[in-house]
Amino acid sequence: MVDLTLLGCGGGMPIPERFLSSLLINYKGRKILIDCGEGTQVSMKIAKTGFKNIDIICITHIHGDHIIGLPGLLSTIGNSERRQPLKILGPKGITAAVNGLRVVAQYLPYDIEIIEVGENDLELLEGEVLCSTLELDHSSPCVGYRFYFKRNPRFDMDRAKKNDVPKILWNKLQKSKDSINYQGKRYNPLMVMGEERKGIKLSFVTDTRPKDEIVEFIKDSDFFICEGTYGNDLDIEKAIRNKHMTFKESAILAKTGNVKTLLLTHFSPAILEPSEYLTNATDVFNNTLIGEDRMKFTLNFEE
Amino acid sequence: MVDLTLLGCGGGMPIPERFLSSLLINYKGRKILIDCGEGTQVSMKIAKTGFKNIDIICITHIHGDHIIGLPGLLSTIGNSERRQPLKILGPKGITAAVNGLRVVAQYLPYDIEIIEVGENDLELLEGEVLCSTLELDHSSPCVGYRFYFKRNPRFDMDRAKKNDVPKILWNKLQKSKDSINYQGKRYNPLMVMGEERKGIKLSFVTDTRPKDEIVEFIKDSDFFICEGTYGNDLDIEKAIRNKHMTFKESAILAKTGNVKTLLLTHFSPAILEPSEYLTNATDVFNNTLIGEDRMKFTLNFEE
Repeated sequence: MVDLTLLGCGGGMPIPERFLSSLLINYKGRKILIDCGEGTQVSMKIAKTGFKNIDIICITHIHGDHIIGLPGLLSTIGNSERRQPLKILGPKGITAAVNGLRVVAQYLPYDIEIIEVGENDLELLEGEVLCSTLELDHSSPCVGYRFYFKRNPRFDMDRAKKNDVPKILWNKLQKSKDSINYQGKRYNPLMVMGEERKGIKLSFVTDTRPKDEIVEFIKDSDFFICEGTYGNDLDIEKAIRNKHMTFKESAILAKTGNVKTLLLTHFSPAILEPSEYLTNATDVFNNTLIGEDRMKFTLNFEE
Repeated sequence: MVDLTLLGCGGGMPIPERFLSSLLINYKGRKILIDCGEGTQVSMKIAKTGFKNIDIICITHIHGDHIIGLPGLLSTIGNSERRQPLKILGPKGITAAVNGLRVVAQYLPYDIEIIEVGENDLELLEGEVLCSTLELDHSSPCVGYRFYFKRNPRFDMDRAKKNDVPKILWNKLQKSKDSINYQGKRYNPLMVMGEERKGIKLSFVTDTRPKDEIVEFIKDSDFFICEGTYGNDLDIEKAIRNKHMTFKESAILAKTGNVKTLLLTHFSPAILEPSEYLTNATDVFNNTLIGEDRMKFTLNFEE
């Protein structure tokens, strides 16, 4: 299962009731953070998430409301006694941005690897998570993230027998990623494991105008977290001008992309009660939720 | 009068109950901000201070907890429709630090002038405030700030008569900083104004070990805001190691410097209730206050 904490659901600037864009993903105790607006570490403190096990930080784009919390968080992660390296993913320019911000966090007790994402998928968390990115349509280079949490197949005794795998290797092969040599023969894990099982697909898309490629990108996601900067349909001109979306536009993407659940986030600071506009989304896509700071979700593998 | 809002009283890292080091000074509607830790703009939102009239931002040193909020605040000031230039003061290295952090706030609708402070006093807010700095003793270049808010002398009719100043110039000269030519003679404001009157002296000192020069620097301050990172006297070794002070050490400075009031701030995140240690300060200097976020003070000119 995958645990999510929406650390901040605000866009533009922090307001007393709402931290800025940030999502924490916890998968088997390892953590991936998406975006890190100002105050992200405070929201983490309130949510008691801990700092040490953040292995990967994905930045959507280099606007203050998505990245300013980074240098403070990196320092705090250092104070949490982390010594293992940490990866930072982001669009073109992320290296210069991180290095610029690190003027106030120069000495960290762990290494940072910065990856400018491109068209290739990345294997994260020792290959258990496949991360894909999509170039979005915003006023600066911006990427959407999609994570596929793989599910291990089950042990298949019939297959093990059919492949003449000695019983003594059954357990070892189930837990191994590599082949095993035994009495002059080579056995690989696939010889004892059943069919692949469906994993969990999570998509995160902010900040952008709608574009066709997003539909393909989020296709059949179990959970789709998407910006809804403007609740009111009448704000469409603002949305176009500022390269953002209305609730309705996000809901159209969710529906067309056949996702299971849509969670709206990244609300304009001008919207004090996003839920007032919920029907603008649910009229199009019923299973829409309005984000709130430190909302938690658990995504389970299908039985 | 001078209005102060202690926006944040935390050191090291933000915690849910406490924003990081920051003080807002309001003098005749113009504002000077000292330090800008992560979340400063949120605290300003809560305190409803407004953003547009911040003319000067003084940074004590380039550690994250004193400066990370800067790029976000600069953006928000831009959104507040400010178009006048803004000054940023700081120690050696402040130019590189601000330029580094501005990677996420590159386009601002106003100019920024960055000043690396030195031994010379600076005239701020059209000469109404004299700003002095002192090099402190911390793990990176760090300066203390002292502000002297000048008080205009009163109009002195006897002096105006003695100097044969025509009545028609009395009012003009009171309000002028420059001399006025009238019927072939030159009149300057000093010819109609009385003795200089005592202004208000405000000192701000964090982060540092105690040093003799601080006593002279803060001498006779009306208000002395000083770090008290550690409340417990037993934490003196930590204070020495991390180049900070205990409450007691700050109180000794306040007493030796003959200040009127000491306000302690910059508490370690490990101290949840700084007031538990208040007597460690008041045993030495009775008029000590424990800072809390958004505490407000008004400093009045003497009658």
